[in-house]
Amino acid sequence: MVVKVKEPQPVEIDRLREGQILYTYLHLAPDLPQTQGLIKSGAVCIAYETVELANGSLPLLAPMSEVAGRMAAQVGAAYLQKPNGGRGVLMGGVPGVPPARVVVLGGGVVGTNAAYVAMSMGGDVTIMDVNLDRLRYLDEIWGNRIRTLFSSKHNIEEAVYQADLVIGAVLLPGAKTPYLVTSDMLPQMKDGSVVVDVSVDQGGCIETTHPTTHADPTYFVDGVLHYGVANMPGAVPNTSTLALTNATLRYGLAIAGKGWKDAVKDDPALAKGVNVLDGKITYKPVAEAHGMNYTPLEKLL
Amino acid sequence: MVVKVKEPQPVEIDRLREGQILYTYLHLAPDLPQTQGLIKSGAVCIAYETVELANGSLPLLAPMSEVAGRMAAQVGAAYLQKPNGGRGVLMGGVPGVPPARVVVLGGGVVGTNAAYVAMSMGGDVTIMDVNLDRLRYLDEIWGNRIRTLFSSKHNIEEAVYQADLVIGAVLLPGAKTPYLVTSDMLPQMKDGSVVVDVSVDQGGCIETTHPTTHADPTYFVDGVLHYGVANMPGAVPNTSTLALTNATLRYGLAIAGKGWKDAVKDDPALAKGVNVLDGKITYKPVAEAHGMNYTPLEKLL
Amino acid sequence: MVVKVKEPQPVEIDRLREGQILYTYLHLAPDLPQTQGLIKSGAVCIAYETVELANGSLPLLAPMSEVAGRMAAQVGAAYLQKPNGGRGVLMGGVPGVPPARVVVLGGGVVGTNAAYVAMSMGGDVTIMDVNLDRLRYLDEIWGNRIRTLFSSKHNIEEAVYQADLVIGAVLLPGAKTPYLVTSDMLPQMKDGSVVVDVSVDQGGCIETTHPTTHADPTYFVDGVLHYGVANMPGAVPNTSTLALTNATLRYGLAIAGKGWKDAVKDDPALAKGVNVLDGKITYKPVAEAHGMNYTPLEKLL
Amino acid sequence: MVVKVKEPQPVEIDRLREGQILYTYLHLAPDLPQTQGLIKSGAVCIAYETVELANGSLPLLAPMSEVAGRMAAQVGAAYLQKPNGGRGVLMGGVPGVPPARVVVLGGGVVGTNAAYVAMSMGGDVTIMDVNLDRLRYLDEIWGNRIRTLFSSKHNIEEAVYQADLVIGAVLLPGAKTPYLVTSDMLPQMKDGSVVVDVSVDQGGCIETTHPTTHADPTYFVDGVLHYGVANMPGAVPNTSTLALTNATLRYGLAIAGKGWKDAVKDDPALAKGVNVLDGKITYKPVAEAHGMNYTPLEKLL
Amino acid sequence: MVVKVKEPQPVEIDRLREGQILYTYLHLAPDLPQTQGLIKSGAVCIAYETVELANGSLPLLAPMSEVAGRMAAQVGAAYLQKPNGGRGVLMGGVPGVPPARVVVLGGGVVGTNAAYVAMSMGGDVTIMDVNLDRLRYLDEIWGNRIRTLFSSKHNIEEAVYQADLVIGAVLLPGAKTPYLVTSDMLPQMKDGSVVVDVSVDQGGCIETTHPTTHADPTYFVDGVLHYGVANMPGAVPNTSTLALTNATLRYGLAIAGKGWKDAVKDDPALAKGVNVLDGKITYKPVAEAHGMNYTPLEKLL
Amino acid sequence: MVVKVKEPQPVEIDRLREGQILYTYLHLAPDLPQTQGLIKSGAVCIAYETVELANGSLPLLAPMSEVAGRMAAQVGAAYLQKPNGGRGVLMGGVPGVPPARVVVLGGGVVGTNAAYVAMSMGGDVTIMDVNLDRLRYLDEIWGNRIRTLFSSKHNIEEAVYQADLVIGAVLLPGAKTPYLVTSDMLPQMKDGSVVVDVSVDQGGCIETTHPTTHADPTYFVDGVLHYGVANMPGAVPNTSTLALTNATLRYGLAIAGKGWKDAVKDDPALAKGVNVLDGKITYKPVAEAHGMNYTPLEKLL
Repeated sequence: MVVKVKEPQPVEIDRLREGQILYTYLHLAPDLPQTQGLIKSGAVCIAYETVELANGSLPLLAPMSEVAGRMAAQVGAAYLQKPNGGRGVLMGGVPGVPPARVVVLGGGVVGTNAAYVAMSMGGDVTIMDVNLDRLRYLDEIWGNRIRTLFSSKHNIEEAVYQADLVIGAVLLPGAKTPYLVTSDMLPQMKDGSVVVDVSVDQGGCIETTHPTTHADPTYFVDGVLHYGVANMPGAVPNTSTLALTNATLRYGLAIAGKGWKDAVKDDPALAKGVNVLDGKITYKPVAEAHGMNYTPLEKLL
Repeated sequence: MVVKVKEPQPVEIDRLREGQILYTYLHLAPDLPQTQGLIKSGAVCIAYETVELANGSLPLLAPMSEVAGRMAAQVGAAYLQKPNGGRGVLMGGVPGVPPARVVVLGGGVVGTNAAYVAMSMGGDVTIMDVNLDRLRYLDEIWGNRIRTLFSSKHNIEEAVYQADLVIGAVLLPGAKTPYLVTSDMLPQMKDGSVVVDVSVDQGGCIETTHPTTHADPTYFVDGVLHYGVANMPGAVPNTSTLALTNATLRYGLAIAGKGWKDAVKDDPALAKGVNVLDGKITYKPVAEAHGMNYTPLEKLL
Repeated sequence: MVVKVKEPQPVEIDRLREGQILYTYLHLAPDLPQTQGLIKSGAVCIAYETVELANGSLPLLAPMSEVAGRMAAQVGAAYLQKPNGGRGVLMGGVPGVPPARVVVLGGGVVGTNAAYVAMSMGGDVTIMDVNLDRLRYLDEIWGNRIRTLFSSKHNIEEAVYQADLVIGAVLLPGAKTPYLVTSDMLPQMKDGSVVVDVSVDQGGCIETTHPTTHADPTYFVDGVLHYGVANMPGAVPNTSTLALTNATLRYGLAIAGKGWKDAVKDDPALAKGVNVLDGKITYKPVAEAHGMNYTPLEKLL
Repeated sequence: MVVKVKEPQPVEIDRLREGQILYTYLHLAPDLPQTQGLIKSGAVCIAYETVELANGSLPLLAPMSEVAGRMAAQVGAAYLQKPNGGRGVLMGGVPGVPPARVVVLGGGVVGTNAAYVAMSMGGDVTIMDVNLDRLRYLDEIWGNRIRTLFSSKHNIEEAVYQADLVIGAVLLPGAKTPYLVTSDMLPQMKDGSVVVDVSVDQGGCIETTHPTTHADPTYFVDGVLHYGVANMPGAVPNTSTLALTNATLRYGLAIAGKGWKDAVKDDPALAKGVNVLDGKITYKPVAEAHGMNYTPLEKLL
Repeated sequence: MVVKVKEPQPVEIDRLREGQILYTYLHLAPDLPQTQGLIKSGAVCIAYETVELANGSLPLLAPMSEVAGRMAAQVGAAYLQKPNGGRGVLMGGVPGVPPARVVVLGGGVVGTNAAYVAMSMGGDVTIMDVNLDRLRYLDEIWGNRIRTLFSSKHNIEEAVYQADLVIGAVLLPGAKTPYLVTSDMLPQMKDGSVVVDVSVDQGGCIETTHPTTHADPTYFVDGVLHYGVANMPGAVPNTSTLALTNATLRYGLAIAGKGWKDAVKDDPALAKGVNVLDGKITYKPVAEAHGMNYTPLEKLL
Repeated sequence: MVVKVKEPQPVEIDRLREGQILYTYLHLAPDLPQTQGLIKSGAVCIAYETVELANGSLPLLAPMSEVAGRMAAQVGAAYLQKPNGGRGVLMGGVPGVPPARVVVLGGGVVGTNAAYVAMSMGGDVTIMDVNLDRLRYLDEIWGNRIRTLFSSKHNIEEAVYQADLVIGAVLLPGAKTPYLVTSDMLPQMKDGSVVVDVSVDQGGCIETTHPTTHADPTYFVDGVLHYGVANMPGAVPNTSTLALTNATLRYGLAIAGKGWKDAVKDDPALAKGVNVLDGKITYKPVAEAHGMNYTPLEKLL
C-alpha cells in the first residue's frame, strides 16, 4: 500500500504493480499519461479528491480548503503592504483609522475560513453568498463582527469597487466556477487593491486571475495586484501535512486493516475514491474526460 | 434635609427656611427667580450637577448620561421605522441585508453607551472622538464590532452623509457644545435619516436641533427627522430613579450622618456642590451668570 | 411574469390573463374573492408562503420572520418607555440597576432573532421552548448571556409574572398557535409590562392579543400594554424588501430562465408554491378552505 | 537576606541577627511574641503585606487575592454538590434548566475574580458594590453576562435570599469588614445554600462565618453551609507560589542588588514595608497595636 | 402509569401488574432478576435509555451527559487542589501564572460540556476527537479559546503527559469504550495529576479507572489521582431531575394522552424504548444478553 | 510653519530660516549635521518624538507603535510560510492541527497590538511582561484567549525554545533595550522559527537582530529567520499617515492658532517637543549627545 500526498511521478508509476494499493491525490481527469500508466499498472488506485460522503461533501479536500482559506487572508494582508505592491493599508487599521475593506466571495469552507481570519485581524469584512442559510449561520455565530451580504451582481459591484482586498472563494464541485468579478470591473477598483483567488485552479471566480507559483506569485492587471498561487497549502507544509493526514488516516487504516476490498464494500464514501482497478477506469468523470471506457466499480468487486 | 430629583417648585421654595438642607438638581445659572428664592431662604442648597471629583468628573450627572446614551440608540432604532417618520431601515438588518449605519459623535459616557447599544443591536456603528486614548480603549474592549474614527471635519462629513442615524453625544463641561453637524450639511444627508441629539439642552452638537418634549418629540428639517427631547431619562423613571439614588446616596448619607458642615469639610467633591449658603452664592459660575456677588465657601465654614 | 410582494388588488386580478405568471404572497385560504379571481384569470399563480423545502422549512417566509423577530425586541424596548405606556424601564438598565426582564416564548426563527436583539441590548432574557436541541444550540453559541428554559406551564407562569416584556414567538406551521399566556394570567403580570405577540395573525400565543395597525398599534388589558401589529416588517420596508428579494430571486430567476413548467418540475420546493393553474386549485389546503375541487399539480404538468 | 512566604517560626526568630534582612509575610499586629523577637534580633524586617503603592494598592497582597477569588467560585461549585452538603445544584445548569444563582459581595480584586469564574462556569451572577465606577468597568468588559447591582441593604437582602451561593469578598484595608449578611438573615436563605467568605480572616463580611481549615473546612448555620478556610491559596501552592514570587521578585532583586538601604530610599512603596529596623518599630499600626514606641523610618536611614 | 428515575426496587416489581405502564431507566441487560420480574408482571415496561431517534441519538440520555460533562470539569478543578490529593494547581491560573492543562478525550455531548466549563474557568484545554467535523464546529464557535486536536495515539500521549487534568469522555453507544489511556502511560504522567473518567460505567476510556461512589470517590494509581464516580449527576439532583423531566415529559404526556399503544405506534423513537410487553422481551439486546426469546414489538401491537 | 513626517533633507535644511516653525520627526541625537543645520537656521524646531505628557507617555509616537505592533504579527505569519524561509506553519492552524506558538516579549503598546492580532489570527500566544498590572488588564479583557506570563529569565527561555514566532516588543524610553533573547539561546530555538524585533532601532531586545530594509528585510542566524525592518509603519503609508495626523493635528492646530510661543506656554507636553530655538538647543538629551550647550526653554520664552 503506497500512501502519498501528490500524484505519483512517472518513474513511480512504472514501478507500480498488481497487488499494490495507491492512496493519494491523483487528479486524473486532465492527466492522460498518468491515467494510462495507472491502468497499465494493475494497481488499485484510490484518489483522495473523489472520496465523497452521502451529503456530497469531500472529506479529503476539506482540510486543504481550510488551510487555503486561512492563508488567503494573511496573504492578502501581506500584499496590501506597499513594498509588496499593495495600497499600503494595514489590515486592521488602528484606533481612529479605518481598517482594510475586505470582500470575500463565497461562504463555503474556503470563504468562511478566509473571512474568519480577515475579520479577526480587524478587517472590515463583507462575506457574500447566495445561500441565505449559510449567511444566517455566520450571522448567528459572529454577529456584527462581519457583514453578510446577498451575492447579487449589483451588490458584488458595489462591494468590490470599495474593497482593498477581494478574496475569491467560490467553488462549484464538478463545474467551472462562474466569473463573479469580470475584467471590465477592474478599472473601477482601487489602485493597489489586492485580489486573491483561491479557486484559481478551477478556473477562478475572478476573470483576470491565472495560476502562479510561490516563486513568482503576483502580477498586476489594471493597477490591481493579483495573487494566483494554485497550491496555497504548499506554503505551510507543516500544517497541511498534519491536516491531510488527520483526514486520510481513518480510510487508510480501514484499507490496511481489513483489506481494500472490504473497506470499499463497507464504506460507500471510500468506494467513490476508487478511480482505477484491475486496469479499468471505475470513476465515470475520468473515463469521460479521456473518452475511455467506464466500468462501474460494483462489477469488479 | 430635603432630597429631591428636580429643582424645587416656587411654592416649595417659599417654604424653605434656615436650618434646612436642600439636596437635588438645581441648575441655577439660567434660573434667576429660583436663585433669588434660595438666597432668601437661608437654607443650605447643594446641587447634584456641580458635585465634582478631583479628576473633573461629575458623579451625580454620570448615571443620567448612561441612561440617556442607552436610550438614544433604542429611540433612534424606533424612529428609523417608517410609520415613525424614518427611512424604514431595521437597526440590525438581517443576514444578507445591511444594517443601519450609525454615527455617534463623541466617545464620552453618553457616546459610549449609545454606541454600545447600537452596535449590540447589530448596527454598523462608527464612533468619533478627538481623544485617541478613548478610541484606543474602545478598540481594546470591543475590537472590530465597532469602527473608531478620529473626529475631523472631513471624517464627520463623510460619515454623516452615509448615515441612517446620527447620535450627538458631545458635551463640553462648562462650555457651549460646538456644532459638529451644521445646517448646510443636512441637504446632503439621506432622506428619512434620523438625528438624536443628546446634548440638545446644552445647545446641541447638531445645529438644527432644538429641545422638544416626550409629548411631541420630533420634527423634520431638510427631510431629516430630528429627535430633541431634552429630558430623555424621564421616559424610564423606574430605571433613572434607581440609577440616580445609587449615586446620590453616599453623599446624602454623609450629610445626614455627620451634618452637612462636616460632610462638606471632609469631602471636596461634595463641597463643590454647595451653591447657596447663608443667603450667599458659593458657586462662582452661578454668581457670574447672574452678575451677583460670589462668596467662597471656605469663608462661611 | 408579475412579481409582487402583496397579493394583487381586485383591479389587478381583473387584468391577469392566461399565459401570465403571478409570483407573490397570495394567502388564498381566507380570501374567497381573490381565489375566484385567480381561477378565472387562467394565470399560473405561485404563492411565496407555500414554497416549502424537503425539511418542512418555508424559505420565502423566513426573511420576514427574521425581520419581525428583531423588530419585536426594539419595539418592546420602545413601549417599555413611560410616555409610550410602559413601566418606564430601560431595556439594558445601567451599571448598578437591573435591566428589563424579557421572556421570549418560542425558540424558532422569530424567537431566536427577538432574543438575540433583546439580549444584546442588555436585557435579562429567558428564552423558552420545548425543543431541547434548540435550547442546546442557543446555549452553545450564546453561553450565559441568555437563560434557556424548558417551556412547561409552571415555568411559563413563573417567568411571565416577573417579566417586564413578553414576546410571543410561537408559530406552528399549519396549525392554530396554542395560548401559552392565557387571559387569567394577566392580572398577575406587572402593571405596565408589555406584550408583543409576533404570531398575532396566526391567532397569537397570548390569548388577549388581537391584530392592530401601525397607525394604532397598542391597547391595554388588565394594565398590560399589548402591541399586536400584524405586519411588523411593513415598518421597515427598506430592509424587508431587500430581505424578501434575496430569498425570492433564485426561484424567480429559475421561472424566468427556463419557464415556469421546467422550473416547477425541477424543484419540488417551488412546485409546492403553485396554488392555482389553468383555472384549477393545485394546493390542497386552499381547496379545502373554500370547499372547492383540488387538482394535484402533477396532473396538469 | 532571608526570603520566605510565611512568618518565621520561633526557632527561626531566635537565629535572626543584626545584618540580616527578613523579607516575608509578617502580620505583626496581632502577634506580640514575634514582634518582640524581631525587635530583639536587630534584623531589617520587611513585611510583604504593608508594601504599598502611592495609589494605596498593596502589590504583594494582590496575587493572593486573585488566587482566593478564583478559588472561591470553584470551591462554591463543589460545595453546592449534594454529597458535599449543598443544595445539589449544578453551577452552570444545563440547557433548559436554570444555573445556580450566585451573589458576590464586593467588586475589588477578590470579588472580580470570583465573579469572573462563577460567571464563566455558567452561573447566574450578581456582583454588588457601592463603587459605581467599578460596576461600570465590569459592565463595559463583560456586558450582560453578569448583573451589576448597587450594594444597598435592600438589594443585598433581595439578592441573598434568592442565592444558591454567596461569596463574601469585601475587604476594607486597615479596617474591620462590616457585616453585610447578618445572622438574622440566615433563616430566610435557601436550605443547603452555600456561603464562602474570603474575608473571613479580617473578620468576614458574613456575620456567621468563622475561620476553618482545609482539613475541616465547612459547618452549617441555619441550614446554610459555611466554608471559612482562612488560607485559601494554600490549597493550590503550585499556583500561589509562582504568583507570589512574580510579585515579590522585583523588590527582592532591588534589595539584593543595591542593598536594602538604597532600595528603600529609592522606592517609597518598599519603604512602607519596613516594619522593624535596628530594634525599633517603624510601621505605625504595628506600634499602636502593641502600645509600643513608633520610630519613623526616615529617622533611621 | 408509573414514572420514576431509577429502576424499580424488588418490592416495587412485585407490585407491578398487567395494565400498568412502567416508564423509567431500566438497564435490564446486566440485571437478570429485574428482567424476570418485569416479564412476570405483565406490565408495559418502557426504558428511558433505549428511546432512540432516527439519527441514532438518545434523547433521554443526553441531559445526563450534559450534567456529567459539566460536573467533570468542576470536579476536576476541586481535586487539583492539594488538600484533595491533586497537584495544587488552580484551574484558571492567575495573570502571569499558567493555568492547568486539561485534556478532554472525546468531543461528544459529555466532552463538549466538560471542555466548555474547563475552558471557561480559564483552563488551557485541548479537546481531542477523530471526528474532524465536530472539531470544526467547536473551532467555529469557540475560536482559539480552546485547542482542537486530532485524536491519534501519538497526539494523545503527548497531550496526556503534559496534562494536569484528563477527562475521559468517550462513549461508543452499544460498544465497550476503547482504552485511550493505557496503564503503561500512567508512570509518565505528572505526579498529582487528576483523571476523571465519565465513561467509567461503560468500562471507561482510561484503563486504570474503576467505578467509585460519592462517599469514597477517589484513589491513586502511580501517583495519579483517579475520580471514578459512576453516577455523577446524582450529586446535583436538583439540576438533574429537572433536566431529565424536561426530556421525558413529552413522551410521558403522549403515553398518558393517547395511551401507550397509540403513542408507540405514532413515534418510532418511543417504540424503541419498549423493553418488555405482555411478558415478552421486545428489545433485542436485552433478550440476547440473557439468552431469552426476542419478540419484535410489531407482533404485539 | 513646515509640517512633515520625516526629518528635513539637507537641501530643505538650507532653506529653513528664522521665523519658520519646523514640526516633524527630527531624531537629532544621533544626527550631528542635521542638528548643526537646524541651529544655524534660526527656526523653531519641534520634534514629534519628544512631545511628552505628564504621565511620561509619548502621544506622537504611540500611533506608530500601534501600527508596528499590528504589522509585526502579520509579518510574522507571512515569514512562517516556507517559501519565505519559515517553518511552514500556518499561524492559526486548522481544526485538529495546532496553531503557531507565538511569544510576545513586552506588554506595552507594541506588544499588546502584536499579541492582539496574533491571537485573533488563531495563534497560541504567550505575552510576557514584568508589569503584573498590565498582565491583569490583558487577562480581564481577553480571558483565556491568550496566556499571560511573568517575564523571568527562566520563563523566557522555556517559552522561546518552543516558539514558532518571537516578537520583540520591549521599549524602555530613553534607555538601551536589554537583551531578553541572547545569542547563546538561538541554537536551542526551532529551525525555521521566526524573530520579528520591533525594537530593533533602539538596539533591539533580541541580541542577534540588526536593522534591515523593506527591500531586503530578512536574514538567518543559527537557522532562525530574523526580520529587522526598522521602519515597519513605512510599509502601510496609507494607514500610518492618517494615524500620525490624527495625533499631531491638535498640537499643530494650537501652534497655528495662537502662535508657537503661546501654544508652548500653554501646554507643557508640547514644550517638551521644542528641540532647537533661536539657534540654541533646548532639549537636554540632544545637547548631551553632541556635547553642546543646553539652554532651558524657559530662558528663551
